[in-house]
Amino acid sequence: MRQRYEKILNKINQYNSGVKGITRIAYSNEEQACTHALMRMCKDAKMTVKLDQAGNLIARRDGKSNELPPVIIGSHIDSVYQGGKYDGVVGVTAALEIIHRLNDRGIVTEHPIELISFACEESSRFGVSTVGSKAMAGRIEKEKYRLLTDRDGVTMERAFALCALDFNNIEQASRRGGTFKAFYEIHIEQGPVLEIEKKKIGIVTGIAAPARFIVKVFGSASHSGTTPMTMRKDALLGAAEIALELEKVAKLERSFGTVATVGVLDVKPGAMNVVPGEVEMKIDIRSSSIESRQRVLNHLFQTITSVENKRLLEIACDEISLEDPILLSTELGNLIAQICKQKKLPYRFMQSGAGHDAMNMTGFGPVGLIFIPSAGGISHHPQEHTDMEDILVGIDVLEMAILESAKVSSLQFGG
Amino acid sequence: MRQRYEKILNKINQYNSGVKGITRIAYSNEEQACTHALMRMCKDAKMTVKLDQAGNLIARRDGKSNELPPVIIGSHIDSVYQGGKYDGVVGVTAALEIIHRLNDRGIVTEHPIELISFACEESSRFGVSTVGSKAMAGRIEKEKYRLLTDRDGVTMERAFALCALDFNNIEQASRRGGTFKAFYEIHIEQGPVLEIEKKKIGIVTGIAAPARFIVKVFGSASHSGTTPMTMRKDALLGAAEIALELEKVAKLERSFGTVATVGVLDVKPGAMNVVPGEVEMKIDIRSSSIESRQRVLNHLFQTITSVENKRLLEIACDEISLEDPILLSTELGNLIAQICKQKKLPYRFMQSGAGHDAMNMTGFGPVGLIFIPSAGGISHHPQEHTDMEDILVGIDVLEMAILESAKVSSLQFGG
Repeated sequence: MRQRYEKILNKINQYNSGVKGITRIAYSNEEQACTHALMRMCKDAKMTVKLDQAGNLIARRDGKSNELPPVIIGSHIDSVYQGGKYDGVVGVTAALEIIHRLNDRGIVTEHPIELISFACEESSRFGVSTVGSKAMAGRIEKEKYRLLTDRDGVTMERAFALCALDFNNIEQASRRGGTFKAFYEIHIEQGPVLEIEKKKIGIVTGIAAPARFIVKVFGSASHSGTTPMTMRKDALLGAAEIALELEKVAKLERSFGTVATVGVLDVKPGAMNVVPGEVEMKIDIRSSSIESRQRVLNHLFQTITSVENKRLLEIACDEISLEDPILLSTELGNLIAQICKQKKLPYRFMQSGAGHDAMNMTGFGPVGLIFIPSAGGISHHPQEHTDMEDILVGIDVLEMAILESAKVSSLQFGG
Repeated sequence: MRQRYEKILNKINQYNSGVKGITRIAYSNEEQACTHALMRMCKDAKMTVKLDQAGNLIARRDGKSNELPPVIIGSHIDSVYQGGKYDGVVGVTAALEIIHRLNDRGIVTEHPIELISFACEESSRFGVSTVGSKAMAGRIEKEKYRLLTDRDGVTMERAFALCALDFNNIEQASRRGGTFKAFYEIHIEQGPVLEIEKKKIGIVTGIAAPARFIVKVFGSASHSGTTPMTMRKDALLGAAEIALELEKVAKLERSFGTVATVGVLDVKPGAMNVVPGEVEMKIDIRSSSIESRQRVLNHLFQTITSVENKRLLEIACDEISLEDPILLSTELGNLIAQICKQKKLPYRFMQSGAGHDAMNMTGFGPVGLIFIPSAGGISHHPQEHTDMEDILVGIDVLEMAILESAKVSSLQFGG
C-alpha cells in the first residue's frame, strides 16, 4: 500500500511549473493538467467523476444506498508559488488511496463516498482562498471575485475561461440545501506542535479565522543627530511597543490557541540619519475563542491609546477582516480520538490557525479535520516535509473513520 | 543691512533645479553657477577670489599684516535634494554680509579674513559628506572617492571634470601644514533645542560623529496562524526589543547629548500571514562624549546577547563607522558666550549631532561653531526655516567674534 500511495503522490507532484519546490497555481495549466490526471486516476479506481462550474473535481464511489447522503473526503491540489509536496495534496491522495483500499477489499458501504479536489484553495493567485469550497457552500461574492486579478493582470473570470469554465455559472457549483453524512479532510499541520509534542494525529476542534488590522503610526521625522531623545516623536518606537504588547497578551491567551503577529512593518522615510516619522504595521490575530480574541483586541486598542498619549504620536487602526472562528464536529472529533486510542497512537485536540476547505463545509453536516505532523513546522516552502510513515498513519486513521461514517454493508476480503 | 542681507540670500537661492524646496546638488550646474555668482559677489566686495582643486571657493580680504594667519568664515552652498534655503547658505552669506559691514565702516583688521564656500558638504550626491573641507584638511581617500557614483552612475571623477576640475589634483586643495587664527561657521541648528528653550544662539562645544551599525536579526519565518506563540522565533519582536532598549539607554545618557536612532528596519518576508524570519536594522548613535557613547554601545551589545538567548534568535552586529567625536575650541566658545552676554542674548552651549565643515578644520587652529534656531527643528526639507531676525542676530554675534579674532587695526565709521 505504501508503494501505491507513493506512486499516487508522486504522480500529482509531476505537475509543477517550478524549479524550486512545487508551483501548481490555481487554474493554471499545471493545475488543470493535474486535475485531469486525477480524474483519470479516479475513473481507474472505478469512480464516476465530474467537474463542477468552479473547477472542483467530484469523484463518487457508489454506496449500497445511493440516495443516502455521501461521506466526503476533500482537500486541494493547487499550491502556492514555490510550495511543498504535501499541503492539500496529502488530503486528495489519501482519499484516493482509501478508495483503492476499499476496492481491494471489496467493501461496499451503505453511504456513497465522494472524493473532492477543491479548486483554488490557496490565495496565492487572486488573494482569496478556498474559492472552490466557498462556491460549493454558495458563499462566493461573485462580482467582487470576477474582477480579481493575478500578478499578470489576468482576472478570475478570464482564468476560468482559459480552463473552459464559465464564471457566470459559478453559482451552479453550490450544493446549498444538500447535506452529507460526514466531511473529512486530512492535512499537514503547517505548524510545529505535533512534531514537538511527538503526537501522530491532531484532531482539529476549530478553525481560527484571522482578525486583521492595519495600524498606522504617525510621528515626526527629524534629524537623528540633532533631535534630543526627549524631543522625538519616533513612530518606530511606538510601533515596537505595540508589537511587544501584542505578543505579551497573546502569550497570556495561549491556552486558547490564540496567536498574534505583526508580519509587516514599513518605516518611512527609512533613512539611517532620520528619526522615523511614519510606520505602517499589518497585524494578524487568530483564536478559536471569540472571547480570547476579543481580550487581545481590547489590549491592542488600549496599548494604541497609551502609546499615543505617552509618545505624542497619532495612531490609526483599520480593520481589514474580522471573521468568526469556526467550530468543527465534536462527534467526528471524538470518533477520531477513539480510533487513535484503539491504534495506540499519540494524538491531541488542537485548533487550526490556518484556513482549510473543511471550514466551508460546516453548513452541510459534521466536519472532521485531521492533522499530521509537519517537519519543523515548515509549510508553503520547498522544504515542507512530512514523513511517509506519518502520512500512512494518518490515512489508516482516516480510513477507519470513513468506514465508521459510511457504514460497511458487506466485505469481501480480497487480500 | 537687513535688506542687503536678504538680497544676498535670495540671490544664492535663485540657483535651484528643484520645484519643491531647494535642489542645488554638489558639482551640479546649479551649484557651479551659484559658486561662480558668489565669486563675482565676493569680487564686488573687494575680495580676491580663487577656486581650489576640490572646488572650494576661497575669497580673501586683506588684513594689515597679510603674513598673519587668516581668520576664516566658512560653510557651504550645496544642498540635499528638495532641501531648504538656510542649511549652509546662512554661513556663506553671513560671511559676505560681514565683509560688507567691515567695508562699509572702513575697518582694517590685523589678520586677513577668508570666506570659504566648501564644496560638496552634503552626502546626497555621492554618499560622502564634507568633501571640500576634507580635501582642505588633506583627508581625502582619493582612490575610494574617485569611483563613487551618484544616482545616475556618474563618478566623482567625472563630476569634477564636468566642473573643469581635475580629480587627480585634489590633493592640491590640502592646506596641511598651514594654520589660521580662528575658524568660524554659523549654521542653522537643524534640531528643535534652541527654539524650544527660547535661546537665540547655540555655542557648539563638540560635534558628535555617528557610530553606525547594521544589526541583522535572524529568526524563523513560519505561518502566523499555525505557529503557537511559545514556538516562534520572531525576528521583528527581537528587533523591537533592541530598538526600545537603545532608546532607554540613550535617554539615561541624555545629559551628554547622546542620541540613538533606529532609522531603518526592514522585515522579511514581510507578509501579513508570516511570522517575520529576518530583520535588518540600521542604527545611528551620536554623542560628544566617547564614554557616554561607549556606555550606549555596551548596553546595545548586552541587549543583543540577551535577546538572542531569550528568543533563540541569531543576531549579527556590523560596525559601519565609529569615528571619534570632535571637540571645538573652548576659547572661541567662551568668546562667543561673552558676546552673547554683552548683547543680552539668551544662549546655551550644546553639541552638534550633525556633521559640519567646521569639524574638518580643527587641525589648523581654534574652531568656533554658532547655531541659530531652526523652526520646528525641521531641516533638509522645503519647510526648513529660520526667522530673518534670528539670522541677523547670529550675524551680529559672528561679526563681533570676527572683529575680536582678526583684531581691528583702524576704523573709519562710514555709517
